[in-house]
Amino acid sequence: MDISHPGNMQTRMASEIAEQPSAVARTLDHLLLEKPRVHDLAGGRRRVLLVARGSSDNAAIYGRYLLEVAAGVPAALAAPSVATHYRSRLDLSDAVVVSVSQSGATAEIVETQEWARECGAATVAVTNVAGSPLAEAADLALVTQAGPELAVPATKTYSTQLVALAVLADALSSGPGLEDDLRRVPDAVAGLLGTDVSAAAEALATAERVVVSGRGLLLGTALETALKMEETCLRPVRGYSYADLRHGPISVVSEGLLAVLVAAAGGPLAEPMVDLVRDLQDRGARVLGIGGTSAFADLCDLHLAGPDLPETVEPIASIVPAQLMIEQMATRLGLDPDNPRGLNKVTQTDR
Amino acid sequence: MDISHPGNMQTRMASEIAEQPSAVARTLDHLLLEKPRVHDLAGGRRRVLLVARGSSDNAAIYGRYLLEVAAGVPAALAAPSVATHYRSRLDLSDAVVVSVSQSGATAEIVETQEWARECGAATVAVTNVAGSPLAEAADLALVTQAGPELAVPATKTYSTQLVALAVLADALSSGPGLEDDLRRVPDAVAGLLGTDVSAAAEALATAERVVVSGRGLLLGTALETALKMEETCLRPVRGYSYADLRHGPISVVSEGLLAVLVAAAGGPLAEPMVDLVRDLQDRGARVLGIGGTSAFADLCDLHLAGPDLPETVEPIASIVPAQLMIEQMATRLGLDPDNPRGLNKVTQTDR
Repeated sequence: MDISHPGNMQTRMASEIAEQPSAVARTLDHLLLEKPRVHDLAGGRRRVLLVARGSSDNAAIYGRYLLEVAAGVPAALAAPSVATHYRSRLDLSDAVVVSVSQSGATAEIVETQEWARECGAATVAVTNVAGSPLAEAADLALVTQAGPELAVPATKTYSTQLVALAVLADALSSGPGLEDDLRRVPDAVAGLLGTDVSAAAEALATAERVVVSGRGLLLGTALETALKMEETCLRPVRGYSYADLRHGPISVVSEGLLAVLVAAAGGPLAEPMVDLVRDLQDRGARVLGIGGTSAFADLCDLHLAGPDLPETVEPIASIVPAQLMIEQMATRLGLDPDNPRGLNKVTQTDR
Repeated sequence: MDISHPGNMQTRMASEIAEQPSAVARTLDHLLLEKPRVHDLAGGRRRVLLVARGSSDNAAIYGRYLLEVAAGVPAALAAPSVATHYRSRLDLSDAVVVSVSQSGATAEIVETQEWARECGAATVAVTNVAGSPLAEAADLALVTQAGPELAVPATKTYSTQLVALAVLADALSSGPGLEDDLRRVPDAVAGLLGTDVSAAAEALATAERVVVSGRGLLLGTALETALKMEETCLRPVRGYSYADLRHGPISVVSEGLLAVLVAAAGGPLAEPMVDLVRDLQDRGARVLGIGGTSAFADLCDLHLAGPDLPETVEPIASIVPAQLMIEQMATRLGLDPDNPRGLNKVTQTDR
């Protein structure tokens, strides 16, 4: 007989993580239909500027790499304060500005999108809320189909943002499309839901210090893993590009550090990530790997499998083992992953 | 009678900090002559892309804000791996690509500049070494006149990089120039060299945890303060935009945290920084302020004066009190600020 009590009730965060195969599939079905509109809106414009904050910013970082790597479109992240505080007038008539906010209600992002429009940009909103201020004001709204998200840590709204950005890149690409690979993502996400994360969660909960690193297409996943761990588990956790880590901060790597490395199974950065494991271990750190090549997996002190997908769409699924381990880490620390202290669902960076 | 011994010998880092008034003045005199060449090279191009890593990356962040805020030119930071690992072909024929490296010899940066040239960009190198690979391969080299830097932590090469980027922004600006304000910088730097940083260094050396935050034009200064502290004092220190700090990580602010806030004396972000002090103190953190308004200074638990300069050129001088306190913090921790463990002067991010 199973008597439910708080100790074995599933958290909302865990339920929402588990909803991702269907959330991703619904979002794909819905947004692939918008490709011609994205393509038309961008006509003649040379570059993409992404506007976001927090988890959405980590999604935007994936979007930025994917646009440059897979679609051949120059892309960059906007600095919102240039719009909201300095009120600069820039000529953005050559740009598509993509604003990413799950609620579509973060004032800073709504204001920056409005500024971009006044500067001549074509505007695309990526949001989970149809009819939100961001969606209403955009030339085109790509509305993710995650459904209501009740836990404070964004999970299914994050993975569906990645889907929206991948569809955007696909629509703007002159090269081979991403559509066939995207169709494989829901099953890949489903395949990772059963990952046994107990040893990883235990190692994280007992580590003195944690850093997370990745690079290129997987950099956003590493930064999102760090941010989510910080917000959900209330531990200071830093995310780095591995290149930045190597450039200086590696001098503070020492015993007691647990380094979480998020790696791609293929692509030009798979091999350098193997070297990074060795370097970190030589300095006394333990390494918890997610994804990567088999050489990478073998070398890590702890390892969680990633999806079997090409690097371009891999990040949509690679976040899943990280979400699972963070949810379990929070529970081990006696925290409620659904309601971390001091955070609201709609974040405002200014008052 | 003064008998010199290691305890009171001046470090190279301290000498190089003190050389900055003349290094900045020499660099200004030298580079202002290059303005017409910068202007001609950029003719018809719509945007600037900056390429850098480490301290130079923090300088580039200042350059990015200054270009957008003061010169009205869209600017962004490049992702080097798009060039060096993914080898994407992007159309950069509308861009000026500015590569920043004090040595001019970091392979990743040299390679990314070459890639940018092949993609159609006009290329400008900002480096302290005339004849370096980066300078030799650029369409135009802006060579800073810091002289040889012997201590590993970059100080005078960093402040002179900011000068070079300010001259670049001035050359590309259609608005009121920066030249008169830039002429005031050497004296402002000299005026900060006598700052008493002993209480600040003591607070940093004994703090449980340290974060550094700033925003907009001063964001690069905040990030450079964090990076320099980490490299020189071998303590993990994180730098944040205050907007990112507010968006989530503020949930891990608690007692035992010392927050270093780098603020402008004027401009649209001066007032929001005052609010941030209150928020951090309400959560139990102590605040060490650098610069800012008088209301900001009064509220901080510890405060170091910034320069009396407009926000646009203030960062060239605002880094000085931070450099001084970091040098003294390292000494208090029994470390040699000239030779932090594990770092070389020319950094390579890949092998």
